[in-house]
Amino acid sequence: MTAPKPSELAFVPFVSVENMMKLVHYIGIEAMLRGLGDYIEDDFRRWELFDKTPRVASHSEEGVIELMPTSDGEVYGFKYVNGHPKNIHDGLQTVTAFGLLARVGTGYPVLLSEMTVLTAMRTAASSAMVAKHLAPKGARCMAVIGNGAQSEFQALAMKAICGIDTLRMYDIDSRATEKAMRNLDKFGLSMTACRTPEEAMEGAQIITTCTADKQYATILTDNMVGAGIHINAIGGDCPGKTELHRDILSRSTVFVEYPPQTRIEGEIQQMPEDFPVTEMWQVINGTAPGRVNDNQITLFDGVGFAIEDFSALRYVWGRIKETGFYQDLDMVADPDDPRDLFGMLLRSGK
Amino acid sequence: MTAPKPSELAFVPFVSVENMMKLVHYIGIEAMLRGLGDYIEDDFRRWELFDKTPRVASHSEEGVIELMPTSDGEVYGFKYVNGHPKNIHDGLQTVTAFGLLARVGTGYPVLLSEMTVLTAMRTAASSAMVAKHLAPKGARCMAVIGNGAQSEFQALAMKAICGIDTLRMYDIDSRATEKAMRNLDKFGLSMTACRTPEEAMEGAQIITTCTADKQYATILTDNMVGAGIHINAIGGDCPGKTELHRDILSRSTVFVEYPPQTRIEGEIQQMPEDFPVTEMWQVINGTAPGRVNDNQITLFDGVGFAIEDFSALRYVWGRIKETGFYQDLDMVADPDDPRDLFGMLLRSGK
Repeated sequence: MTAPKPSELAFVPFVSVENMMKLVHYIGIEAMLRGLGDYIEDDFRRWELFDKTPRVASHSEEGVIELMPTSDGEVYGFKYVNGHPKNIHDGLQTVTAFGLLARVGTGYPVLLSEMTVLTAMRTAASSAMVAKHLAPKGARCMAVIGNGAQSEFQALAMKAICGIDTLRMYDIDSRATEKAMRNLDKFGLSMTACRTPEEAMEGAQIITTCTADKQYATILTDNMVGAGIHINAIGGDCPGKTELHRDILSRSTVFVEYPPQTRIEGEIQQMPEDFPVTEMWQVINGTAPGRVNDNQITLFDGVGFAIEDFSALRYVWGRIKETGFYQDLDMVADPDDPRDLFGMLLRSGK
Repeated sequence: MTAPKPSELAFVPFVSVENMMKLVHYIGIEAMLRGLGDYIEDDFRRWELFDKTPRVASHSEEGVIELMPTSDGEVYGFKYVNGHPKNIHDGLQTVTAFGLLARVGTGYPVLLSEMTVLTAMRTAASSAMVAKHLAPKGARCMAVIGNGAQSEFQALAMKAICGIDTLRMYDIDSRATEKAMRNLDKFGLSMTACRTPEEAMEGAQIITTCTADKQYATILTDNMVGAGIHINAIGGDCPGKTELHRDILSRSTVFVEYPPQTRIEGEIQQMPEDFPVTEMWQVINGTAPGRVNDNQITLFDGVGFAIEDFSALRYVWGRIKETGFYQDLDMVADPDDPRDLFGMLLRSGK
């Protein structure tokens, strides 16, 4: 008897980093950001359906490793993600990630995917989808404070989803600004490198803060923010890491993904526990107001939630079969007779 | 510029089901069970060092999907495992699993492995390692009640680690017994198929119960269990699933992996919250007594704990490089400049 071949059920499609990048180029980065934004918006609309388990974090001196599970009742997904700020000094990514989808009915995995690139895409798509609902009408100009790994994704998502065509870039390290502007060179955006955050904000209707240091910082102070602005604050995303002065929070209407998580990880960790926030899914559902007037400062305190990863994995799952940008992994044992795992093992040795 | 090749850090060794089976045959199943038993025993010895996060379960009507993370401070591991009892009616495994190890210091994954086969191996190795400490001296004969997917692994681990040479097999479905005896045919064990559980227990010093139905069952009643026996009760491993009559528990000294988990999932879910148990790691450490006399009934209420999976993954990690039974997965994006993820994406499209 020859070794048994695994059946089709034993195979899990795996999207490598290389295949993910091929998928992005095949679809087109702006089209994919729009597609991701649509999937995320759909899942925000059916928010109440989801199992919102808190993430499970394993903290160490160097950083954190987290598992972020969720389920819509039919499909289960989780993301593995680490956050190691010091990695950057050793030439490593501070954040790497992968994710998995499985069928709730059988527990069998149906997709394994890299999520370092995909998380960057979904973070930007989430921000832009939210800005589509909250930014002042006709917004064209965005200040980008922090020009690191997430900045270009934010810029293109805001272009693709909200119609931003002008960027005012600032980073404490001017080489980061140069890098981001070089990367965005061919995307038809008008860009200005600015020497101060104040200069970056001149004429901007949207301010995106996406700096990287793990510490309480004050990237924006109160006097820097004018009326009517939409602030997309995504860099303050873990305990001890914030970017905005609390006076800005007090003057703004604050929108969040999932309050129990944002109160620990977001900008509002600086505020009392009962600080009022609006849940973004309710704005999308029409059950809570978004922007109500032109002078209001709207502030999206984005920390990244499991449902956004779930949406992103669903999007990828839906596109890989047609494109072939995956490989099959023999990841799940699938003996002919499920009670005979040992027999499968025995036969494989012959 | 050509597409950049991922650096070595971007690759995660993956052990497929096929490679896991090759590894088992290469090492030899009994030698590997002994090796796994040693690794598990080592990790029980340094039990206090581990981060013992409770597992994160996502329940549905059909079953459960769980993530079981742990860490020893240097290495982080988790297992994905599902339990879907009805799967067996559709020709699917009731339990499938995979696992991952990562470095705590960087968050970078270092091993992805199938764990359906490996879990069967570690479960048996854990049981036998525990029985080595608790079973009556010179035990040679074991009753195996429930002859499903786990039974052969239990039999061989008890042979390899405890010197069991005689099996008395019983299953409610005689075809399961036939299957198990056929699978174990060449391993030098003396085996008898029994028509009742009582018959199976005649002359046995160890009783292993590993039945599969998800329900309160009474596989063993009190009058069936004589003095001096070691009971290896591994089938009662989730809420609502038990195998033993509670009177047996009252008469036995009960040993467990991790009380907070076993009180929910194990046989002792039938007992009051303060029912006395001994933690197995303390027996191994010499800080709690194991078997104290020849008449005592010792009972291992095994439910499977994250640290055992961690030990098993560590064992595999240590053996794959020499054997080559793995493939490299491009699972983690690793740009030359970590701040330039977008640049890596751009260059890959050229």
